[in-house]
Amino acid sequence: MAEFLYGHWAVMETLRAGRRVAEQLLLSETVEEKGIVADIMAEAQKRVVKIQRTPKRILDDLAAGANHQSVALRVGPYPYADVEDILSLAQRKNEKPFILLLDLLKDPQNVGVLLRVADSVGVHGVVMQERRSVSVTPSVVNASSGAVEYLNVAQVTNLVNVMKDLKEQDVWMVGLEAGKDIPPLDKTDLNLSLGLVLGSEGEGMRRLVRETCDLLLSLPMRGHLASLNVATAGSIALYSAWQARGWQGWQDK
Amino acid sequence: MAEFLYGHWAVMETLRAGRRVAEQLLLSETVEEKGIVADIMAEAQKRVVKIQRTPKRILDDLAAGANHQSVALRVGPYPYADVEDILSLAQRKNEKPFILLLDLLKDPQNVGVLLRVADSVGVHGVVMQERRSVSVTPSVVNASSGAVEYLNVAQVTNLVNVMKDLKEQDVWMVGLEAGKDIPPLDKTDLNLSLGLVLGSEGEGMRRLVRETCDLLLSLPMRGHLASLNVATAGSIALYSAWQARGWQGWQDK
Repeated sequence: MAEFLYGHWAVMETLRAGRRVAEQLLLSETVEEKGIVADIMAEAQKRVVKIQRTPKRILDDLAAGANHQSVALRVGPYPYADVEDILSLAQRKNEKPFILLLDLLKDPQNVGVLLRVADSVGVHGVVMQERRSVSVTPSVVNASSGAVEYLNVAQVTNLVNVMKDLKEQDVWMVGLEAGKDIPPLDKTDLNLSLGLVLGSEGEGMRRLVRETCDLLLSLPMRGHLASLNVATAGSIALYSAWQARGWQGWQDK
Repeated sequence: MAEFLYGHWAVMETLRAGRRVAEQLLLSETVEEKGIVADIMAEAQKRVVKIQRTPKRILDDLAAGANHQSVALRVGPYPYADVEDILSLAQRKNEKPFILLLDLLKDPQNVGVLLRVADSVGVHGVVMQERRSVSVTPSVVNASSGAVEYLNVAQVTNLVNVMKDLKEQDVWMVGLEAGKDIPPLDKTDLNLSLGLVLGSEGEGMRRLVRETCDLLLSLPMRGHLASLNVATAGSIALYSAWQARGWQGWQDK
């Protein structure tokens, strides 16, 4: 089913990544053809995507009130990967697997931020539970600034089963959880075949997910609040893991 | 001048911190007295703050369309600190100064996230340029989940002068900047008297601010996008600096 992506970077990176069928670029009637908008139009022309001017209120509708920045792109469905693709990519790059697993995250903004950071640190893929959590919707694409268009994202029906499979393939499942009794993030050398597991906003990991982890690590906190937003905490943990790998792949990008 | 804070945690932490005059708690007519709302009411009663029911549309107006979660608190102005307060706090705690400096950040959401993380890692204070940047508005308080109510925040008219003063007091000014020619975050041992300087969204630090830094460090990136959001990048840098301090103050909170 076709859908509409919106926002400068979501539209630009989707065109550049070129993984989805792009059917039509919609521009608000009043937006000027300069700066990033001109760049988006050039990219669309390169991909032979039709460009259409449209009243702003149509874009408002398509973006359901979100800030579309006067551009929208009609595209085919998001190309989900599967877990095998993720492991193959690690193998092809000759790197230890580095995977992000999300348990029932609900907020598109949080998921988008995490996907953008996942791309920055070079994870080989992201695994999400299919039901009762957010999927790769246009608002997630927007919140990721389009980064998700380059990532392997696998939607799975049973996260715990996938975790068990990955463990059998020697990928360590490390859950991030708040709590003073849990050792801090840098207590374990994260330069290993790693699946970093994040629980949902407010509730954390489900019991079975937590119990399936090989170990739990926490982000220390010394302030007055009890926890950090999952997008912030997960971003810090992703960078900590990549730092443990010696910023592998940074300078040879 | 009185202002209205809104959102569960912004209101709750402002009451708990007790630094502002709190004049009145407004609750939507329809919200039930249970869960976090009951906790907020109990806290208000403890502080002898009047509680008033009000139509939801009044709250909508006060929050200018933001998500107020059915609560608002009429309070006195935010109690800014000055740079001396920040240095005194470090001295009182017998810790090397750990300061966050923000150069012309504009987005309340970004500033709120950074202030929440600043509280988590135990910075002694935050310094912001007074003009052309966001101040501690109700939307910043909300985005920080109320953490800013516990922090020393100093607004200064000339950030560069403050940086120079701090340097004379042996605080190192470390600017975070994207770029492959800039050494990564963990290249320097950040266990020093530290002022971490962040530039604005999009444009980074102003030239004079950058030139006043003792050194620049970058957050490595290996993905397809050129940069991370300043709130994400700054959060990672703050944790990296605290990690270099051996999570000082974590277990004795």
